Amino acid sequence: MRVSVVGGSVVPDPVEELAEDVGRLLAQRGHTVVCGGLGGAMEAVCRGAKNAGGETIGILPGEDRDEANEYVDISIATGLGHARNALVVMNGDAVIAIDGSGGTLSEIGFGNVYDRPIAGIRTHNLGTLDRYQACKTPEEAVKYIEREV
Amino acid sequence: MRVSVVGGSVVPDPVEELAEDVGRLLAQRGHTVVCGGLGGAMEAVCRGAKNAGGETIGILPGEDRDEANEYVDISIATGLGHARNALVVMNGDAVIAIDGSGGTLSEIGFGNVYDRPIAGIRTHNLGTLDRYQACKTPEEAVKYIEREV
Amino acid sequence: MRVSVVGGSVVPDPVEELAEDVGRLLAQRGHTVVCGGLGGAMEAVCRGAKNAGGETIGILPGEDRDEANEYVDISIATGLGHARNALVVMNGDAVIAIDGSGGTLSEIGFGNVYDRPIAGIRTHNLGTLDRYQACKTPEEAVKYIEREV
Amino acid sequence: MRVSVVGGSVVPDPVEELAEDVGRLLAQRGHTVVCGGLGGAMEAVCRGAKNAGGETIGILPGEDRDEANEYVDISIATGLGHARNALVVMNGDAVIAIDGSGGTLSEIGFGNVYDRPIAGIRTHNLGTLDRYQACKTPEEAVKYIEREV
Repeated sequence: MRVSVVGGSVVPDPVEELAEDVGRLLAQRGHTVVCGGLGGAMEAVCRGAKNAGGETIGILPGEDRDEANEYVDISIATGLGHARNALVVMNGDAVIAIDGSGGTLSEIGFGNVYDRPIAGIRTHNLGTLDRYQACKTPEEAVKYIEREV
Repeated sequence: MRVSVVGGSVVPDPVEELAEDVGRLLAQRGHTVVCGGLGGAMEAVCRGAKNAGGETIGILPGEDRDEANEYVDISIATGLGHARNALVVMNGDAVIAIDGSGGTLSEIGFGNVYDRPIAGIRTHNLGTLDRYQACKTPEEAVKYIEREV
Repeated sequence: MRVSVVGGSVVPDPVEELAEDVGRLLAQRGHTVVCGGLGGAMEAVCRGAKNAGGETIGILPGEDRDEANEYVDISIATGLGHARNALVVMNGDAVIAIDGSGGTLSEIGFGNVYDRPIAGIRTHNLGTLDRYQACKTPEEAVKYIEREV
Repeated sequence: MRVSVVGGSVVPDPVEELAEDVGRLLAQRGHTVVCGGLGGAMEAVCRGAKNAGGETIGILPGEDRDEANEYVDISIATGLGHARNALVVMNGDAVIAIDGSGGTLSEIGFGNVYDRPIAGIRTHNLGTLDRYQACKTPEEAVKYIEREV
Protein backbone atom coordinates (compact mmCIF):
# COMPACT_ATOMS: atom_id res chain seq x y z
CA MET A 1 0.00 0.00 0.00
CA ARG A 2 0.92 3.66 -0.04
CA VAL A 3 1.75 5.28 3.29
CA SER A 4 1.83 9.05 3.77
CA VAL A 5 4.62 9.98 6.13
CA VAL A 6 4.34 13.51 7.50
CA GLY A 7 6.70 15.51 9.67
CA GLY A 8 8.62 18.75 9.91
CA SER A 9 11.05 20.11 7.30
CA VAL A 10 13.50 21.02 10.06
CA VAL A 11 13.82 18.38 12.75
CA PRO A 12 16.45 17.35 15.34
CA ASP A 13 18.78 14.44 14.59
CA PRO A 14 16.91 11.80 16.62
CA VAL A 15 13.76 12.58 14.67
CA GLU A 16 15.63 12.23 11.38
CA GLU A 17 16.83 8.83 12.50
CA LEU A 18 13.30 7.89 13.46
CA ALA A 19 11.99 8.98 10.06
CA GLU A 20 14.73 7.06 8.28
CA ASP A 21 13.79 3.95 10.24
CA VAL A 22 10.15 4.39 9.27
CA GLY A 23 11.13 4.67 5.60
CA ARG A 24 13.31 1.58 5.72
CA LEU A 25 10.67 -0.44 7.49
CA LEU A 26 7.93 0.60 5.05
CA ALA A 27 10.13 -0.33 2.08
CA GLN A 28 11.02 -3.69 3.62
CA ARG A 29 7.32 -4.40 4.05
CA GLY A 30 6.67 -3.56 0.38
CA HIS A 31 4.95 -0.21 0.91
CA THR A 32 5.43 2.99 -1.10
CA VAL A 33 6.25 6.19 0.79
CA VAL A 34 4.25 9.34 -0.02
CA CYS A 35 5.50 12.58 1.50
CA GLY A 36 5.82 16.32 1.00
CA GLY A 37 9.05 15.87 -0.94
CA LEU A 38 11.19 18.45 0.85
CA GLY A 39 13.85 18.22 3.61
CA GLY A 40 13.92 17.18 7.26
CA ALA A 41 11.66 14.27 8.12
CA MET A 42 10.52 14.12 4.48
CA GLU A 43 14.03 13.62 3.18
CA ALA A 44 14.94 11.16 5.94
CA VAL A 45 11.96 8.90 5.31
CA CYS A 46 12.73 8.86 1.58
CA ARG A 47 16.39 8.08 2.22
CA GLY A 48 15.42 5.20 4.47
CA ALA A 49 13.02 3.82 1.89
CA LYS A 50 15.45 4.13 -1.01
CA ASN A 51 18.27 2.50 0.96
CA ALA A 52 15.97 -0.48 1.45
CA GLY A 53 15.00 -0.60 -2.24
CA GLY A 54 11.58 1.02 -1.84
CA GLU A 55 9.65 3.55 -3.90
CA THR A 56 8.96 7.18 -2.96
CA ILE A 57 6.54 9.86 -4.14
CA GLY A 58 7.02 13.52 -3.22
CA ILE A 59 4.13 15.99 -3.51
CA LEU A 60 5.65 19.45 -3.45
CA PRO A 61 4.19 22.84 -2.45
CA GLY A 62 5.97 24.71 -5.25
CA GLU A 63 5.68 24.77 -9.03
CA ASP A 64 9.09 23.24 -9.72
CA ARG A 65 9.35 19.47 -9.46
CA ASP A 66 13.15 19.74 -9.22
CA GLU A 67 12.80 21.05 -5.67
CA ALA A 68 12.26 17.52 -4.40
CA ASN A 69 14.92 15.93 -2.22
CA GLU A 70 17.25 13.51 -3.98
CA TYR A 71 15.52 10.39 -2.62
CA VAL A 72 12.19 11.13 -4.29
CA ASP A 73 11.45 8.85 -7.27
CA ILE A 74 8.27 10.49 -8.51
CA SER A 75 8.17 14.21 -7.91
CA ILE A 76 4.84 16.00 -8.32
CA ALA A 77 4.74 19.79 -8.31
CA THR A 78 1.48 21.42 -7.19
CA GLY A 79 2.03 25.18 -6.80
CA LEU A 80 -0.62 25.03 -4.05
CA GLY A 81 1.58 26.06 -1.13
CA HIS A 82 0.48 24.54 2.16
CA ALA A 83 -2.86 23.44 0.70
CA ARG A 84 -0.86 20.60 -0.85
CA ASN A 85 -0.87 19.00 2.60
CA ALA A 86 -4.33 17.70 1.75
CA LEU A 87 -2.89 15.94 -1.31
CA VAL A 88 -0.06 14.32 0.62
CA VAL A 89 -2.58 12.64 2.91
CA MET A 90 -5.15 11.87 0.21
CA ASN A 91 -2.58 9.88 -1.75
CA GLY A 92 -1.79 7.42 1.01
CA ASP A 93 -3.87 4.61 2.49
CA ALA A 94 -2.61 5.41 5.98
CA VAL A 95 -0.64 8.14 7.73
CA ILE A 96 2.43 8.03 9.94
CA ALA A 97 3.13 11.38 11.66
CA ILE A 98 6.55 12.02 13.17
CA ASP A 99 7.19 15.03 15.37
CA GLY A 100 6.34 18.19 13.39
CA SER A 101 4.38 21.35 14.15
CA GLY A 102 1.45 23.08 12.45
CA GLY A 103 1.89 21.54 9.00
CA THR A 104 1.99 18.07 10.47
CA LEU A 105 -1.05 18.85 12.59
CA SER A 106 -2.96 19.91 9.47
CA GLU A 107 -2.02 16.59 7.90
CA ILE A 108 -3.19 14.61 10.92
CA GLY A 109 -6.45 16.53 10.63
CA PHE A 110 -6.76 15.61 6.94
CA GLY A 111 -5.98 12.00 7.82
CA ASN A 112 -9.08 12.06 9.96
CA VAL A 113 -11.12 13.85 7.27
CA TYR A 114 -10.23 11.20 4.67
CA ASP A 115 -10.75 8.41 7.24
CA ARG A 116 -7.18 7.11 7.21
CA PRO A 117 -5.66 5.29 10.18
CA ILE A 118 -2.99 7.52 11.70
CA ALA A 119 0.00 6.45 13.74
CA GLY A 120 1.74 9.28 15.60
CA ILE A 121 5.32 9.01 16.86
CA ARG A 122 6.58 11.77 19.14
CA THR A 123 3.94 14.12 17.83
CA HIS A 124 0.84 15.99 19.04
CA ASN A 125 -1.22 14.44 21.81
CA LEU A 126 -4.42 13.56 20.01
CA GLY A 127 -5.61 10.52 21.89
CA THR A 128 -9.28 11.26 21.32
CA LEU A 129 -9.09 11.42 17.54
CA ASP A 130 -10.80 8.54 15.76
CA ARG A 131 -8.44 5.90 14.30
CA TYR A 132 -5.45 7.76 15.78
CA GLN A 133 -2.86 5.83 17.76
CA ALA A 134 0.17 7.18 19.59
CA CYS A 135 3.08 4.81 18.93
CA LYS A 136 6.52 4.55 20.53
CA THR A 137 8.45 2.98 17.66
CA PRO A 138 8.42 2.68 13.86
CA GLU A 139 7.62 -1.03 14.26
CA GLU A 140 4.57 -0.28 16.37
CA ALA A 141 3.41 2.41 13.91
CA VAL A 142 3.72 0.19 10.85
CA LYS A 143 2.03 -2.71 12.63
CA TYR A 144 -0.86 -0.45 13.59
CA ILE A 145 -1.55 0.88 10.12
CA GLU A 146 -1.14 -2.53 8.48
CA ARG A 147 -3.78 -3.90 10.79
CA GLU A 148 -6.15 -0.99 10.22
CA VAL A 149 -6.10 -0.68 6.42
CA MET B 1 -10.13 42.65 11.42
CA ARG B 2 -11.17 39.40 9.84
CA VAL B 3 -11.53 36.37 12.11
CA SER B 4 -11.67 32.81 10.77
CA VAL B 5 -14.10 30.80 12.85
CA VAL B 6 -13.74 27.05 12.34
CA GLY B 7 -15.81 24.17 13.66
CA GLY B 8 -17.80 21.13 12.65
CA SER B 9 -20.64 21.03 10.13
CA VAL B 10 -22.66 18.85 12.49
CA VAL B 11 -22.46 19.92 16.12
CA PRO B 12 -24.61 19.52 19.25
CA ASP B 13 -26.92 22.35 20.31
CA PRO B 14 -24.67 23.81 23.02
CA VAL B 15 -21.88 24.15 20.47
CA GLU B 16 -24.22 25.91 18.05
CA GLU B 17 -25.11 28.36 20.80
CA LEU B 18 -21.46 28.90 21.53
CA ALA B 19 -20.73 29.56 17.85
CA GLU B 20 -23.63 31.97 17.62
CA ASP B 21 -22.29 33.84 20.65
CA VAL B 22 -18.86 34.04 19.02
CA GLY B 23 -20.40 35.46 15.84
CA ARG B 24 -22.44 38.05 17.71
CA LEU B 25 -19.47 39.13 19.80
CA LEU B 26 -17.19 39.45 16.77
CA ALA B 27 -19.78 41.57 14.95
CA GLN B 28 -20.31 43.78 18.00
CA ARG B 29 -16.55 44.35 18.13
CA GLY B 30 -16.51 45.33 14.44
CA HIS B 31 -14.85 42.21 13.08
CA THR B 32 -15.76 40.30 9.92
CA VAL B 33 -16.39 36.55 10.19
CA VAL B 34 -14.67 34.23 7.72
CA CYS B 35 -15.79 30.61 7.73
CA GLY B 36 -16.32 27.52 5.59
CA GLY B 37 -19.79 28.69 4.62
CA LEU B 38 -21.73 25.49 5.31
CA GLY B 39 -23.91 24.31 8.23
CA GLY B 40 -23.39 23.53 11.91
CA ALA B 41 -20.91 25.80 13.66
CA MET B 42 -20.33 27.67 10.38
CA GLU B 43 -23.99 28.57 10.03
CA ALA B 44 -24.36 29.42 13.71
CA VAL B 45 -21.44 31.83 13.75
CA CYS B 46 -22.77 33.58 10.64
CA ARG B 47 -26.25 33.81 12.13
CA GLY B 48 -24.84 35.35 15.28
CA ALA B 49 -22.81 37.86 13.30
CA LYS B 50 -25.69 38.85 11.01
CA ASN B 51 -28.10 39.27 13.93
CA ALA B 52 -25.64 41.75 15.36
CA GLY B 53 -25.26 43.60 12.06
CA GLY B 54 -21.88 42.12 11.15
CA GLU B 55 -20.38 40.94 7.87
CA THR B 56 -19.69 37.31 6.89
CA ILE B 57 -17.58 35.60 4.24
CA GLY B 58 -18.05 31.91 3.42
CA ILE B 59 -15.33 29.98 1.56
CA LEU B 60 -16.95 26.82 0.24
CA PRO B 61 -15.50 23.44 -0.68
CA GLY B 62 -17.75 23.01 -3.73
CA GLU B 63 -18.04 24.74 -7.10
CA ASP B 64 -21.46 26.28 -6.46
CA ARG B 65 -21.55 29.47 -4.42
CA ASP B 66 -25.26 28.98 -3.76
CA GLU B 67 -24.42 26.18 -1.34
CA ALA B 68 -23.55 28.73 1.34
CA ASN B 69 -25.79 29.00 4.38
CA GLU B 70 -28.28 31.88 4.33
CA TYR B 71 -26.23 34.06 6.70
CA VAL B 72 -23.22 34.32 4.40
CA ASP B 73 -22.88 37.75 2.74
CA ILE B 74 -19.99 37.00 0.42
CA SER B 75 -19.93 33.44 -0.81
CA ILE B 76 -16.78 32.18 -2.51
CA ALA B 77 -16.82 28.83 -4.29
CA THR B 78 -13.49 27.00 -4.58
CA GLY B 79 -14.11 23.47 -5.89
CA LEU B 80 -11.07 22.42 -3.84
CA GLY B 81 -12.83 20.08 -1.44
CA HIS B 82 -11.18 19.92 1.97
CA ALA B 83 -8.07 21.71 0.70
CA ARG B 84 -10.18 24.87 0.97
CA ASN B 85 -9.57 24.68 4.73
CA ALA B 86 -6.24 26.35 4.05
CA LEU B 87 -8.06 29.28 2.43
CA VAL B 88 -10.50 29.70 5.30
CA VAL B 89 -7.60 30.21 7.70
CA MET B 90 -5.45 32.25 5.30
CA ASN B 91 -8.22 34.82 4.92
CA GLY B 92 -8.47 35.69 8.59
CA ASP B 93 -6.09 37.57 10.86
CA ALA B 94 -6.80 35.19 13.71
CA VAL B 95 -8.59 31.87 14.27
CA ILE B 96 -11.27 30.82 16.73
CA ALA B 97 -11.82 27.05 16.78
CA ILE B 98 -14.99 25.63 18.32
CA ASP B 99 -15.39 21.93 18.93
CA GLY B 100 -14.98 20.10 15.60
CA SER B 101 -13.06 17.02 14.51
CA GLY B 102 -10.50 16.40 11.76
CA GLY B 103 -11.39 19.33 9.54
CA THR B 104 -11.14 21.72 12.46
CA LEU B 105 -7.85 20.15 13.46
CA SER B 106 -6.47 20.75 9.97
CA GLU B 107 -7.52 24.38 10.28
CA ILE B 108 -5.84 24.77 13.65
CA GLY B 109 -2.73 23.35 12.00
CA PHE B 110 -2.95 25.87 9.17
CA GLY B 111 -3.45 28.65 11.73
CA ASN B 112 -0.05 27.70 13.09
CA VAL B 113 1.47 27.45 9.60
CA TYR B 114 0.29 30.97 8.71
CA ASP B 115 1.31 32.27 12.15
CA ARG B 116 -2.17 33.29 13.29
CA PRO B 117 -3.14 33.45 16.94
CA ILE B 118 -5.63 30.66 17.65
CA ALA B 119 -8.23 30.55 20.41
CA GLY B 120 -9.76 27.13 20.98
CA ILE B 121 -13.09 26.64 22.74
CA ARG B 122 -14.10 23.08 23.64
CA THR B 123 -11.79 21.72 21.00
CA HIS B 124 -8.60 19.63 20.72
CA ASN B 125 -6.08 19.79 23.53
CA LEU B 126 -3.15 21.52 21.86
CA GLY B 127 -1.58 23.38 24.73
CA THR B 128 1.93 23.12 23.32
CA LEU B 129 1.15 24.75 19.98
CA ASP B 130 2.67 28.18 19.50
CA ARG B 131 0.21 31.10 19.84
CA TYR B 132 -2.59 28.66 20.73
CA GLN B 133 -4.77 29.34 23.74
CA ALA B 134 -7.51 27.18 25.18
CA CYS B 135 -10.40 29.48 26.17
CA LYS B 136 -13.54 28.83 28.19
CA THR B 137 -15.84 31.48 26.72
CA PRO B 138 -16.38 33.51 23.55
CA GLU B 139 -15.41 36.63 25.50
CA GLU B 140 -12.09 35.11 26.51
CA ALA B 141 -11.42 33.92 22.95
CA VAL B 142 -12.10 37.29 21.36
CA LYS B 143 -10.07 39.08 24.00
CA TYR B 144 -7.13 36.75 23.34
CA ILE B 145 -7.05 37.21 19.58
CA GLU B 146 -7.59 40.98 19.81
CA ARG B 147 -4.56 41.23 22.06
CA GLU B 148 -2.43 38.99 19.83
CA VAL B 149 -3.08 40.50 16.39
CA MET C 1 -25.21 39.00 -11.07
CA ARG C 2 -21.51 38.45 -10.66
CA VAL C 3 -19.34 38.85 -13.74
CA SER C 4 -15.78 37.52 -13.90
CA VAL C 5 -13.61 39.93 -15.85
CA VAL C 6 -10.32 38.43 -16.97
CA GLY C 7 -7.34 40.01 -18.68
CA GLY C 8 -3.61 40.57 -18.44
CA SER C 9 -1.75 42.07 -15.48
CA VAL C 10 0.30 44.20 -17.86
CA VAL C 11 -1.70 45.72 -20.69
CA PRO C 12 -1.37 48.72 -23.04
CA ASP C 13 -3.28 51.91 -22.25
CA PRO C 14 -6.16 51.37 -24.69
CA VAL C 15 -6.83 48.01 -23.05
CA GLU C 16 -6.84 49.59 -19.60
CA GLU C 17 -9.41 52.10 -20.83
CA LEU C 18 -11.47 49.29 -22.25
CA ALA C 19 -11.35 47.41 -18.95
CA GLU C 20 -12.30 50.52 -17.02
CA ASP C 21 -15.28 51.01 -19.32
CA VAL C 22 -16.33 47.41 -18.75
CA GLY C 23 -16.14 47.91 -14.97
CA ARG C 24 -18.17 51.10 -15.07
CA LEU C 25 -20.80 49.60 -17.29
CA LEU C 26 -21.14 46.48 -15.12
CA ALA C 27 -21.53 48.62 -11.99
CA GLN C 28 -24.13 50.86 -13.67
CA ARG C 29 -26.08 47.74 -14.59
CA GLY C 30 -25.98 46.54 -10.96
CA HIS C 31 -23.47 43.72 -11.43
CA THR C 32 -20.59 42.78 -9.13
CA VAL C 33 -17.11 42.48 -10.66
CA VAL C 34 -15.06 39.35 -9.85
CA CYS C 35 -11.42 39.41 -10.96
CA GLY C 36 -7.93 38.21 -10.14
CA GLY C 37 -7.36 41.20 -7.88
CA LEU C 38 -3.97 42.34 -9.21
CA GLY C 39 -2.88 45.08 -11.64
CA GLY C 40 -3.39 45.84 -15.34
CA ALA C 41 -6.82 44.93 -16.67
CA MET C 42 -7.79 43.64 -13.21
CA GLU C 43 -7.12 46.98 -11.56
CA ALA C 44 -8.71 48.96 -14.37
CA VAL C 45 -11.97 47.04 -14.26
CA CYS C 46 -12.15 47.47 -10.47
CA ARG C 47 -11.43 51.20 -10.76
CA GLY C 48 -14.19 51.57 -13.33
CA ALA C 49 -16.63 49.67 -11.15
CA LYS C 50 -15.79 51.60 -7.97
CA ASN C 51 -16.03 54.97 -9.73
CA ALA C 52 -19.56 54.02 -10.70
CA GLY C 53 -20.45 52.88 -7.18
CA GLY C 54 -20.18 49.15 -7.85
CA GLU C 55 -18.82 46.23 -5.83
CA THR C 56 -15.62 44.29 -6.56
CA ILE C 57 -14.20 40.94 -5.47
CA GLY C 58 -10.53 40.06 -6.05
CA ILE C 59 -9.38 36.43 -5.89
CA LEU C 60 -5.62 36.51 -5.50
CA PRO C 61 -2.93 33.96 -6.41
CA GLY C 62 -0.86 34.64 -3.28
CA GLU C 63 -1.35 34.06 0.44
CA ASP C 64 -1.57 37.74 1.40
CA ARG C 65 -4.90 39.44 0.88
CA ASP C 66 -3.24 42.85 1.09
CA GLU C 67 -1.75 42.31 -2.36
CA ALA C 68 -5.06 43.27 -3.96
CA ASN C 69 -5.26 46.50 -5.93
CA GLU C 70 -6.83 49.42 -4.08
CA TYR C 71 -10.18 49.14 -5.88
CA VAL C 72 -10.95 45.64 -4.56
CA ASP C 73 -13.66 45.61 -1.87
CA ILE C 74 -13.49 41.96 -0.90
CA SER C 75 -10.02 40.49 -1.21
CA ILE C 76 -9.67 36.70 -1.06
CA ALA C 77 -6.20 35.16 -0.78
CA THR C 78 -5.79 31.63 -2.14
CA GLY C 79 -2.09 30.72 -2.18
CA LEU C 80 -2.89 28.55 -5.21
CA GLY C 81 -0.77 30.42 -7.77
CA HIS C 82 -2.20 30.24 -11.27
CA ALA C 83 -4.64 27.47 -10.29
CA ARG C 84 -6.68 30.27 -8.74
CA ASN C 85 -7.75 31.16 -12.30
CA ALA C 86 -10.34 28.39 -11.96
CA LEU C 87 -11.78 30.14 -8.89
CA VAL C 88 -12.00 33.54 -10.60
CA VAL C 89 -14.21 32.04 -13.29
CA MET C 90 -16.17 29.74 -10.97
CA ASN C 91 -17.29 32.72 -8.90
CA GLY C 92 -18.94 34.61 -11.73
CA ASP C 93 -22.14 33.87 -13.65
CA ALA C 94 -20.53 34.99 -16.89
CA VAL C 95 -17.08 35.91 -18.18
CA ILE C 96 -15.79 38.95 -20.03
CA ALA C 97 -12.25 38.45 -21.39
CA ILE C 98 -10.21 41.47 -22.42
CA ASP C 99 -6.96 41.08 -24.32
CA GLY C 100 -4.58 38.94 -22.19
CA SER C 101 -2.31 36.00 -22.95
CA GLY C 102 -2.00 32.50 -21.46
CA GLY C 103 -3.65 33.21 -18.12
CA THR C 104 -6.63 34.77 -19.82
CA LEU C 105 -6.79 31.83 -22.22
CA SER C 106 -6.91 29.41 -19.27
CA GLU C 107 -9.80 31.43 -17.86
CA ILE C 108 -11.70 31.34 -21.14
CA GLY C 109 -11.19 27.58 -21.07
CA PHE C 110 -12.57 27.35 -17.54
CA GLY C 111 -15.51 29.53 -18.59
CA ASN C 112 -16.35 26.80 -21.08
CA VAL C 113 -15.78 24.04 -18.50
CA TYR C 114 -18.19 25.68 -16.04
CA ASP C 115 -20.65 26.46 -18.84
CA ARG C 116 -20.53 30.24 -18.51
CA PRO C 117 -21.29 32.56 -21.41
CA ILE C 118 -18.07 34.29 -22.44
CA ALA C 119 -17.70 37.62 -24.20
CA GLY C 120 -14.24 38.28 -25.62
CA ILE C 121 -13.02 41.78 -26.45
CA ARG C 122 -9.72 42.07 -28.37
CA THR C 123 -8.70 38.65 -27.20
CA HIS C 124 -8.00 35.17 -28.61
CA ASN C 125 -9.88 34.08 -31.71
CA LEU C 126 -12.08 31.31 -30.36
CA GLY C 127 -15.09 31.52 -32.62
CA THR C 128 -15.84 27.82 -32.42
CA LEU C 129 -16.08 27.63 -28.62
CA ASP C 130 -19.57 27.03 -27.28
CA ARG C 131 -21.27 30.11 -25.76
CA TYR C 132 -18.28 32.27 -26.75
CA GLN C 133 -18.88 35.54 -28.55
CA ALA C 134 -16.30 37.94 -29.91
CA CYS C 135 -17.47 41.49 -29.11
CA LYS C 136 -16.23 44.87 -30.29
CA THR C 137 -17.30 47.04 -27.35
CA PRO C 138 -18.04 46.82 -23.62
CA GLU C 139 -21.70 47.53 -24.39
CA GLU C 140 -21.89 44.60 -26.78
CA ALA C 141 -20.15 42.32 -24.28
CA VAL C 142 -22.42 43.20 -21.38
CA LYS C 143 -25.50 42.90 -23.57
CA TYR C 144 -24.39 39.44 -24.70
CA ILE C 145 -23.83 38.03 -21.21
CA GLU C 146 -27.01 39.59 -19.80
CA ARG C 147 -28.99 37.86 -22.51
CA GLU C 148 -27.25 34.53 -21.99
CA VAL C 149 -27.39 34.16 -18.20
CA MET D 1 11.62 14.29 -20.27
CA ARG D 2 8.03 14.45 -19.07
CA VAL D 3 5.38 15.44 -21.61
CA SER D 4 1.89 16.57 -20.59
CA VAL D 5 -0.63 15.27 -23.07
CA VAL D 6 -4.00 16.98 -22.83
CA GLY D 7 -7.27 16.26 -24.60
CA GLY D 8 -10.93 15.53 -24.07
CA SER D 9 -12.37 12.75 -21.91
CA VAL D 10 -14.85 11.90 -24.66
CA VAL D 11 -13.37 11.97 -28.14
CA PRO D 12 -14.17 10.38 -31.54
CA ASP D 13 -12.29 7.26 -32.64
CA PRO D 14 -9.79 9.00 -34.95
CA VAL D 15 -8.75 11.23 -32.05
CA GLU D 16 -8.27 8.21 -29.78
CA GLU D 17 -6.02 6.68 -32.42
CA LEU D 18 -4.10 9.89 -32.67
CA ALA D 19 -3.64 10.02 -28.89
CA GLU D 20 -2.52 6.40 -28.83
CA ASP D 21 0.06 7.17 -31.51
CA VAL D 22 1.32 10.11 -29.50
CA GLY D 23 1.70 7.92 -26.41
CA ARG D 24 3.55 5.20 -28.31
CA LEU D 25 5.87 7.67 -29.94
CA LEU D 26 6.66 9.43 -26.65
CA ALA D 27 7.45 6.08 -24.99
CA GLN D 28 9.65 5.01 -27.87
CA ARG D 29 11.58 8.24 -27.52
CA GLY D 30 12.06 7.62 -23.79
CA HIS D 31 9.64 10.24 -22.50
CA THR D 32 7.17 9.87 -19.62
CA VAL D 33 3.53 10.74 -20.27
CA VAL D 34 1.74 13.03 -17.79
CA CYS D 35 -2.02 13.37 -18.23
CA GLY D 36 -5.31 13.91 -16.41
CA GLY D 37 -5.63 10.18 -15.75
CA LEU D 38 -9.22 9.67 -16.90
CA GLY D 39 -10.79 8.33 -20.15
CA GLY D 40 -10.88 9.40 -23.80
CA ALA D 41 -7.67 10.96 -25.07
CA MET D 42 -6.11 10.53 -21.60
CA GLU D 43 -6.67 6.79 -21.61
CA ALA D 44 -5.60 6.41 -25.23
CA VAL D 45 -2.28 8.18 -24.74
CA CYS D 46 -1.54 6.04 -21.67
CA ARG D 47 -2.43 2.86 -23.55
CA GLY D 48 -0.12 3.81 -26.38
CA ALA D 49 2.70 4.57 -23.98
CA LYS D 50 2.28 1.37 -21.98
CA ASN D 51 2.11 -0.78 -25.11
CA ALA D 52 5.49 0.64 -26.06
CA GLY D 53 6.95 0.04 -22.61
CA GLY D 54 6.74 3.64 -21.41
CA GLU D 55 5.81 5.22 -18.08
CA THR D 56 2.61 7.15 -17.32
CA ILE D 57 1.51 9.55 -14.58
CA GLY D 58 -2.17 10.47 -14.11
CA ILE D 59 -3.15 13.55 -12.10
CA LEU D 60 -6.81 13.15 -11.22
CA PRO D 61 -9.50 15.73 -10.40
CA GLY D 62 -11.08 13.58 -7.68
CA GLU D 63 -10.00 12.38 -4.24
CA ASP D 64 -9.78 8.68 -5.15
CA ARG D 65 -6.64 7.55 -6.92
CA ASP D 66 -8.38 4.38 -8.06
CA GLU D 67 -10.36 6.41 -10.59
CA ALA D 68 -7.38 6.43 -12.94
CA ASN D 69 -7.60 4.52 -16.19
CA GLU D 70 -5.89 1.13 -16.21
CA TYR D 71 -2.85 2.35 -18.14
CA VAL D 72 -1.75 4.85 -15.49
CA ASP D 73 1.34 3.73 -13.53
CA ILE D 74 1.46 6.49 -10.95
CA SER D 75 -1.94 7.80 -10.01
CA ILE D 76 -2.13 11.06 -8.06
CA ALA D 77 -5.45 12.17 -6.56
CA THR D 78 -5.92 15.90 -6.04
CA GLY D 79 -9.54 16.58 -5.08
CA LEU D 80 -9.15 19.94 -6.83
CA GLY D 81 -11.69 19.41 -9.59
CA HIS D 82 -10.82 21.25 -12.78
CA ALA D 83 -8.17 23.34 -11.03
CA ARG D 84 -6.02 20.21 -11.30
CA ASN D 85 -5.53 21.14 -14.98
CA ALA D 86 -2.81 23.52 -13.79
CA LEU D 87 -1.00 20.59 -12.16
CA VAL D 88 -1.17 18.41 -15.26
CA VAL D 89 0.65 21.07 -17.25
CA MET D 90 3.05 22.09 -14.46
CA ASN D 91 4.34 18.52 -14.22
CA GLY D 92 5.48 18.24 -17.81
CA ASP D 93 8.37 19.91 -19.65
CA ALA D 94 6.23 20.37 -22.74
CA VAL D 95 2.58 20.04 -23.76
CA ILE D 96 0.91 18.16 -26.59
CA ALA D 97 -2.77 19.10 -27.00
CA ILE D 98 -5.08 16.84 -28.99
CA ASP D 99 -8.57 17.94 -29.93
CA GLY D 100 -10.49 18.74 -26.74
CA SER D 101 -12.73 21.61 -25.66
CA GLY D 102 -12.68 24.00 -22.70
CA GLY D 103 -10.56 21.88 -20.36
CA THR D 104 -7.94 21.42 -23.04
CA LEU D 105 -8.04 25.13 -23.78
CA SER D 106 -7.38 25.90 -20.10
CA GLU D 107 -4.39 23.57 -20.27
CA ILE D 108 -3.01 25.25 -23.38
CA GLY D 109 -3.35 28.53 -21.49
CA PHE D 110 -1.44 27.13 -18.51
CA GLY D 111 1.22 25.81 -20.89
CA ASN D 112 1.77 29.40 -21.92
CA VAL D 113 1.71 30.63 -18.30
CA TYR D 114 4.40 28.12 -17.29
CA ASP D 115 6.37 28.84 -20.48
CA ARG D 116 6.15 25.33 -21.93
CA PRO D 117 6.38 24.66 -25.66
CA ILE D 118 2.97 23.48 -26.86
CA ALA D 119 2.21 21.36 -29.90
CA GLY D 120 -1.45 21.30 -30.92
CA ILE D 121 -2.93 18.55 -33.09
CA ARG D 122 -6.47 19.07 -34.39
CA THR D 123 -7.19 21.50 -31.59
CA HIS D 124 -7.97 25.20 -31.09
CA ASN D 125 -6.56 27.68 -33.58
CA LEU D 126 -4.06 29.59 -31.45
CA GLY D 127 -1.45 30.56 -33.99
CA THR D 128 -0.53 33.77 -32.19
CA LEU D 129 0.30 32.18 -28.84
CA ASP D 130 3.97 32.24 -27.94
CA ARG D 131 5.79 28.88 -28.33
CA TYR D 132 2.60 27.31 -29.70
CA GLN D 133 2.78 25.27 -32.88
CA ALA D 134 -0.05 23.67 -34.80
CA CYS D 135 1.08 20.20 -35.94
CA LYS D 136 -0.44 17.72 -38.37
CA THR D 137 0.97 14.48 -36.96
CA PRO D 138 2.27 12.97 -33.72
CA GLU D 139 5.75 12.84 -35.29
CA GLU D 140 5.68 16.54 -36.05
CA ALA D 141 4.42 17.33 -32.53
CA VAL D 142 7.09 15.29 -30.77
CA LYS D 143 9.81 16.69 -33.00
CA TYR D 144 8.68 20.23 -32.20
CA ILE D 145 8.70 19.83 -28.42
CA GLU D 146 11.99 17.92 -28.41
CA ARG D 147 13.61 20.79 -30.26
CA GLU D 148 12.08 23.43 -27.99
CA VAL D 149 12.82 22.00 -24.55
